[in-house]
Amino acid sequence: MERCSTILDIRRFVSGQKRAGKTVAFVPTMGALHAGHRSCIDIARKAGDCLVVSIFVNPTQFGPNEDVDSYPRVIDEDLARCREWGCDAVFSPSVPEMYPESQTVWVEPGRAAEPLCGRTREGHFRGVTTVVGKLFSVVEPDVAVFGQKDAQQATVIREMVRQLNLPVRLLVSPIVREEDGLAFSSRNRRLTRDERRRAVALHHALGHGLEILSGGEINPRKICEAVIKRLNDDGVDRVEYVELLRVPDLTGIERVEGKVLLAAAVHVGSVRLIDNRVVQITADGHVSEAPLFDVD
Amino acid sequence: MERCSTILDIRRFVSGQKRAGKTVAFVPTMGALHAGHRSCIDIARKAGDCLVVSIFVNPTQFGPNEDVDSYPRVIDEDLARCREWGCDAVFSPSVPEMYPESQTVWVEPGRAAEPLCGRTREGHFRGVTTVVGKLFSVVEPDVAVFGQKDAQQATVIREMVRQLNLPVRLLVSPIVREEDGLAFSSRNRRLTRDERRRAVALHHALGHGLEILSGGEINPRKICEAVIKRLNDDGVDRVEYVELLRVPDLTGIERVEGKVLLAAAVHVGSVRLIDNRVVQITADGHVSEAPLFDVD
Repeated sequence: MERCSTILDIRRFVSGQKRAGKTVAFVPTMGALHAGHRSCIDIARKAGDCLVVSIFVNPTQFGPNEDVDSYPRVIDEDLARCREWGCDAVFSPSVPEMYPESQTVWVEPGRAAEPLCGRTREGHFRGVTTVVGKLFSVVEPDVAVFGQKDAQQATVIREMVRQLNLPVRLLVSPIVREEDGLAFSSRNRRLTRDERRRAVALHHALGHGLEILSGGEINPRKICEAVIKRLNDDGVDRVEYVELLRVPDLTGIERVEGKVLLAAAVHVGSVRLIDNRVVQITADGHVSEAPLFDVD
Repeated sequence: MERCSTILDIRRFVSGQKRAGKTVAFVPTMGALHAGHRSCIDIARKAGDCLVVSIFVNPTQFGPNEDVDSYPRVIDEDLARCREWGCDAVFSPSVPEMYPESQTVWVEPGRAAEPLCGRTREGHFRGVTTVVGKLFSVVEPDVAVFGQKDAQQATVIREMVRQLNLPVRLLVSPIVREEDGLAFSSRNRRLTRDERRRAVALHHALGHGLEILSGGEINPRKICEAVIKRLNDDGVDRVEYVELLRVPDLTGIERVEGKVLLAAAVHVGSVRLIDNRVVQITADGHVSEAPLFDVD
């Protein structure tokens, strides 16, 4: 496995692969790799001849009061996992390598960035689209894989790729969960034992919302209120948002129908956690789990 | 020569060229081609194995009160010239091909977009960076050529390429002038005979500014005021701006030194014209014409 820490090095690696006629699959990450990343990596390995993973905690997607400094960084562990999981190259640049000057050119995200985290994390998605745009320009992948846990992020990036005509195909990996149902997240490492026990409330509350929906409730507000109540009852420290939105455009809905995203963000101790479920409601009211993106 | 009007077609053409090991040089234009474009095309032909020209009057770079509708469109004439000038492919998409949905994702330009046209044409450079970003993603050129007449545009695009790590090399073609010194521009077609006669004042006034500078004047404000006076005396209908800025970052200066851009925008009749000169001032006060970009 190649390890590249400069743009020049990863460009050389990728152009060598392309000259050999290989397609490039790419998984951008912020490191602290877990089973969720592994799922993305497994999908990417099958989607391209050559697999590149980036590890970069991107400062421009964190707000001034957010956890960029306490975000877990375990590069040696990550490199071992990338090797074990069959990556061909890891791109792990420094902050000055990615941002040698103060960034003033931005990829401004579109409508999908407005709800959910877009309302509570100002500037977050602009940082995401800009760094992903930069990484795409550096790695020039044929296909890139994102995790469904960050469903809005994947949707924002899909809108960017479509509207800027970026020559990359996007795939989404399903959410991978720990044994009790908590979605894998790099931030889970920062939970205390008590917080970890309480964090599973997020998974249970979303499940509760889907049960209500399956029971025939079509008022999105009522479903979200029930989820919020359950989260508070189950002892999360703060509910940031719970929303039910139309898929794929993440617009608000008056009644639940078609494909929808039930998404929530909560705080447990000092840790912010997000999770979501995507379901399809058929005309006769049957509810089933559905992929975030339809296959192109 | 290939003529492609869809993104799919030009991508097929380019990927065929790349598979054959050829490098791609690209000249994006809004058509109504003239000797200034020809100079860009000549530079591009030498810089790459295969030469692609785009012809697209980009609506997102025109303001609501600007001349998008009256901008000259002469596609048959343009195609004949591209053939004659040795282009390998012309990409001439429709507006819906480039903007199939309302554009909400933008490439937000950086500091170079702030002065000059950035102050008088709100949103102009955002439209330019977004469409050039899209065209780069579609054509995937190795090298692209821009004209120095749009010196700020070239600088804005260079800042975008650098900060977004776009894998393209930029070249700038010098300004090409008609016999009396007026810079070639697609908009010159719209001048009446009387306006055309008066339009050369722009060239003369910039020359006057450089004479004052060569005479030892180092106060940028005094030089700009003299240029403005000359423009008004010579009968242009409105002076939009005259500014003297540092090259390459287009920031304001207290005294003239190093490499500077003297740029002006005026209105003659209903036509808006821009022109500029780039000069280098040596430590001993010698002034000479200089390229906008240093060769990488």
